[in-house]
Amino acid sequence: MKRTAFFISDGTGITAQALGQALLAQFETIDFERITLPYIDSVEKAQNVVARINRTADTDEGSPIIFDTIVNSEIRSVIRTSQGYMIDIFGTFLEPLEMELKHKSSYTVGKSHSITGSERYSERIAAMNFALENDDGARTRQYSDADLILVGVSRSGKTPTCIYLALQCGLKAANYPLTDDDILDQKLPKVLQPYRDKIFGLTIDVDRLVAIRNERKPNSRYASVKQCMYELQEVELMYQRERIPHINSTHYSVEEIATRILMETGIERRVR
Amino acid sequence: MKRTAFFISDGTGITAQALGQALLAQFETIDFERITLPYIDSVEKAQNVVARINRTADTDEGSPIIFDTIVNSEIRSVIRTSQGYMIDIFGTFLEPLEMELKHKSSYTVGKSHSITGSERYSERIAAMNFALENDDGARTRQYSDADLILVGVSRSGKTPTCIYLALQCGLKAANYPLTDDDILDQKLPKVLQPYRDKIFGLTIDVDRLVAIRNERKPNSRYASVKQCMYELQEVELMYQRERIPHINSTHYSVEEIATRILMETGIERRVR
Repeated sequence: MKRTAFFISDGTGITAQALGQALLAQFETIDFERITLPYIDSVEKAQNVVARINRTADTDEGSPIIFDTIVNSEIRSVIRTSQGYMIDIFGTFLEPLEMELKHKSSYTVGKSHSITGSERYSERIAAMNFALENDDGARTRQYSDADLILVGVSRSGKTPTCIYLALQCGLKAANYPLTDDDILDQKLPKVLQPYRDKIFGLTIDVDRLVAIRNERKPNSRYASVKQCMYELQEVELMYQRERIPHINSTHYSVEEIATRILMETGIERRVR
Repeated sequence: MKRTAFFISDGTGITAQALGQALLAQFETIDFERITLPYIDSVEKAQNVVARINRTADTDEGSPIIFDTIVNSEIRSVIRTSQGYMIDIFGTFLEPLEMELKHKSSYTVGKSHSITGSERYSERIAAMNFALENDDGARTRQYSDADLILVGVSRSGKTPTCIYLALQCGLKAANYPLTDDDILDQKLPKVLQPYRDKIFGLTIDVDRLVAIRNERKPNSRYASVKQCMYELQEVELMYQRERIPHINSTHYSVEEIATRILMETGIERRVR
């Protein structure tokens, strides 16, 4: 059965999409075609959207589902004339929220992912630059500025996690790879010792590490079961000896790894 | 007036937060303390959350606002006993959606940002690695694999945009800096010519570029008004001569730049 979901917004559509995906994930047997329509910020554009939704309705086996975060109620009411089934987020929640908060909504268009509040935005970009400059142990002299220093063996998930923490949370996350040299004595490397409060460890299952490393350097010593097992064992022993908080990244997405790190360390996001 | 907003989820809380932020952005005069509580996936954890919400309610000047994406209705009903005002996303929309789709919801916990659908997840990570390896013109031999090649003068926003496109859309985005050497003859650099269909340009206002470059290299020729103006003029002329689609990034966040690029090029996200 083919059905279509539209994510429609006067801004980027990111919120409409996030909400829509969360709801559609509950209906995994239905195969939705997903279409995001950002910047629908005029009646004319809305009318074109209605035409498109109606064309889809004619060929699909059920009404298109519409998830919208359009703030302007005039534009929203145009969308409502379509043959789609509308999950109308602002229409549903804004009025009750106005009552509860005893304030009128400002009906400002598409703010969630805009640059306004530019201080916050520049924090995200600064954090991103920090993550890139302090990736893979490239530098250590900025560690005093770091909110967090991720450690772990090569390819355990440090870099994507640091970049996610920078981009989405505005946190300055450095990462330092634990190599053969570092793990010989199961002690925290000297360069990290002054910052032990900021250090968080990643580990990963051997099979997964072998698979990831083999994609990069097939049949190398680096990707061998023996080497991967050795590195992981030593690093995990080091985490225990040095009481470094750590998680196993094998079954987690970067979003989940980041969320768990923030939960365990109590580090607060700088932006949301 | 101090009020508190809770974003509560049995998963990462990212969806609850995105939706809550979008709604709260409509009440900009109210200063909300924002608290995300992820992984509330048991009745016991929910009871602790209720206690926390009620303590907040006692000290705040109005009820805490709760945005939740908890799928399990038993856990949700525990949260509902709190003194908070609940914007209950699944409670509001899941049943009507079940009726419309004529399917039962699977009531699966916190899927939106999990690693399941691992093919898709590994595409995101592969895209991220691609963006990092092909940052700043570091390599050009992988350009045939790129979905997109961003060009622009140094510090016009290429790198954060590429990383965002990789992480959030699963797209392989390379970026190539246009330097003095490249822009002498206002032609597309030779190395880019085979890939002109993939090329998208960024530009930026002079003042903003001067400010950003001065943060990096204060009082340098690189950061001078004269040099920035020269580079931007030449690059914009090149975009026009070579008909390279382009946007001005000055007033846009990475989310907005990425959304506009996808809109203008028609490139489809690989993941959502």
